Amino acid sequence: MSTPSNYLQMVSTVSSDGELKMELVEKPMPEPKAGQIIVRVEAAPINPSDHGVMFGWSNMAEAKSTGSGQNTILTAPVPEQGMRAMKARVGQALPVGNEGAGTVVAAGSDEYAQSLIGKTVAVMGGGMYSQYRAIDAVMALPLLEGHSAKEGASCFVNPLTALSFLETMRMEGHTAIVHTAAASNLGQMLVRICQADGVNLVNIVRKKEQVDLLRDMGAQYVVNSSSDSFMADLTDAVHETGATLGFDATGGGQLASNILTAMEGAAARTPGAYSVYGSIKHKQVYLYGGLDVSPTVLSRGYGMAWGIGGWLLPNFLAKAGNEVAMRMRTRVANELTTTFASHYTDEISLSQALEAEVVQQYNAKTTGQKFLICPQKP
Amino acid sequence: MSTPSNYLQMVSTVSSDGELKMELVEKPMPEPKAGQIIVRVEAAPINPSDHGVMFGWSNMAEAKSTGSGQNTILTAPVPEQGMRAMKARVGQALPVGNEGAGTVVAAGSDEYAQSLIGKTVAVMGGGMYSQYRAIDAVMALPLLEGHSAKEGASCFVNPLTALSFLETMRMEGHTAIVHTAAASNLGQMLVRICQADGVNLVNIVRKKEQVDLLRDMGAQYVVNSSSDSFMADLTDAVHETGATLGFDATGGGQLASNILTAMEGAAARTPGAYSVYGSIKHKQVYLYGGLDVSPTVLSRGYGMAWGIGGWLLPNFLAKAGNEVAMRMRTRVANELTTTFASHYTDEISLSQALEAEVVQQYNAKTTGQKFLICPQKP
Repeated sequence: MSTPSNYLQMVSTVSSDGELKMELVEKPMPEPKAGQIIVRVEAAPINPSDHGVMFGWSNMAEAKSTGSGQNTILTAPVPEQGMRAMKARVGQALPVGNEGAGTVVAAGSDEYAQSLIGKTVAVMGGGMYSQYRAIDAVMALPLLEGHSAKEGASCFVNPLTALSFLETMRMEGHTAIVHTAAASNLGQMLVRICQADGVNLVNIVRKKEQVDLLRDMGAQYVVNSSSDSFMADLTDAVHETGATLGFDATGGGQLASNILTAMEGAAARTPGAYSVYGSIKHKQVYLYGGLDVSPTVLSRGYGMAWGIGGWLLPNFLAKAGNEVAMRMRTRVANELTTTFASHYTDEISLSQALEAEVVQQYNAKTTGQKFLICPQKP
Repeated sequence: MSTPSNYLQMVSTVSSDGELKMELVEKPMPEPKAGQIIVRVEAAPINPSDHGVMFGWSNMAEAKSTGSGQNTILTAPVPEQGMRAMKARVGQALPVGNEGAGTVVAAGSDEYAQSLIGKTVAVMGGGMYSQYRAIDAVMALPLLEGHSAKEGASCFVNPLTALSFLETMRMEGHTAIVHTAAASNLGQMLVRICQADGVNLVNIVRKKEQVDLLRDMGAQYVVNSSSDSFMADLTDAVHETGATLGFDATGGGQLASNILTAMEGAAARTPGAYSVYGSIKHKQVYLYGGLDVSPTVLSRGYGMAWGIGGWLLPNFLAKAGNEVAMRMRTRVANELTTTFASHYTDEISLSQALEAEVVQQYNAKTTGQKFLICPQKP
């Protein structure tokens, strides 16, 4: 296959004078090293976890775009506090886009790399909002025959995150899970995985139609945080499932604290689960996203055996080791269009992803709306 | 030695109609079982960790006392939310007082129990606000010859907590510690232990005189949270020490979050310690007390590798195992009047501890003020 001599890649830069700039830069096509492949990227999703590198702590409400086509440039001001938090990245043009999929169009001399030529592969390696991407062949996940780049674009972040929730549960000695923003693509995957694995899952959603959506999928425990009976419903569901582990996509406000409060209330109903210091078993909520950027508020009415913390997929994978990672990757490839099917509402080009009005849409992170960047789209 | 046929013990009861009652009940002197000893309790400190069982979630600002001498009764109303939290203890007369020391006045038939007769021992086992206490001989810590019950009264909670902070540090892979309320009895012990063990300790205090007190003890890193330059001072100290572990006695407000923010700021200054997701090394703050009962507020500007959680000595001891516990106990006995010396500002009788105006004083948990109950005092 032939490759062009140059390609476009999206980068994000914070300047020392307090401006975030996102643009497409032209890069020379690299010669693949022995073990490398060149992937023509055909589809790359915009996940909430991409926003951190893309936008950082800039004020996106004031983002503007100029130019058009490959000269489109997005800028946004960065408040002083944001500059302090982003000190370590000032002046660096960071490639963006955690994952994507495409066709292997060139390879280095190694036999395995050569064997991938012409195949459709999924890649998690950063810098995927790009027309081409050179990467070690062993890092790519070859899709099964007949699966498209679009079907495989979200192979890693959501599927591995959902599977890793269950791995975390087992590693840390819990037996059931509470999940927020449960109607999301990730949430629906988690419902399917938990059904397959026989794990009880308490789904927290914000709207009646999301309750219906998950119930239609066969989810047994679905509670609506907008309901007046939310805390009672949540406590009942936690009591029935015995969940002592939560994963919260929102991060801000009282939701994580409410989950711990429900776990404490459930323990108080369980003979032997309670001491004078509160419930005995460790209760943990991980914040794996930050859809709500307001501070996390903990009421602390749940004894002393509790924890809250950040949860990040790469950190978990590093801790879990290769065997767990390979087991999860194989499952994703095998169940790509069933358990791990993703749905996109919008397909956009690289330059469209830099237009201020499009950015406002995907930055809203509305449940049910999901954007796919198609870097080969003109 | 002779023992009376009855003795007084302090108990705390929450009634189903929303009242907390604390009183002295008369109990028959038990016959010690084979491996047991009877300790005549001569000194028992009031630690912040005792307040949970004593007062629970009652409204202590409205506490009243009636009667006098051994008929003194303290009552306080319990708000509705508090009743929900204390559901599991309603109607139970709970003995109070985690630790104390006294003389072994009787023992069961076992040789080891018999060998303790006449010795001064320290005990952590609950129910120590009592004139006598039967306990398994192996649970008691015999003091060295010449050490008094008053010197040994605080043998466990503060010394083992301070030592366990360092054990936690080592078990979880940290190398230095941040501590709040650092001028307390516990804080001063921690300063001495860290000096002896060569561990860097960042002490956070609230007042200039507390800074001076710790500096006079030779503490190298002391920062004042009331100072305008607090965050800058804290970040400098965290950067110099490399502390990624904090223990917070206050619990509420922004202090725990500020410690994580300082750790993040310190990492941003350290080459290689930072990724696009924030600092790489896990940063942890444990809340081991609740001097500030307001909600804990987390600003979350510290990446994804962080955790906050409750920390409770009995839970830690259960996790650390017997060998660690024995090593710590031996060190406490050997260094009782040096490293682990405690100071008391007030010595009170059991009945005085139930007088509303006395309760208000020790419930204020003022740094520098510390109460000792002397159950043999009329």
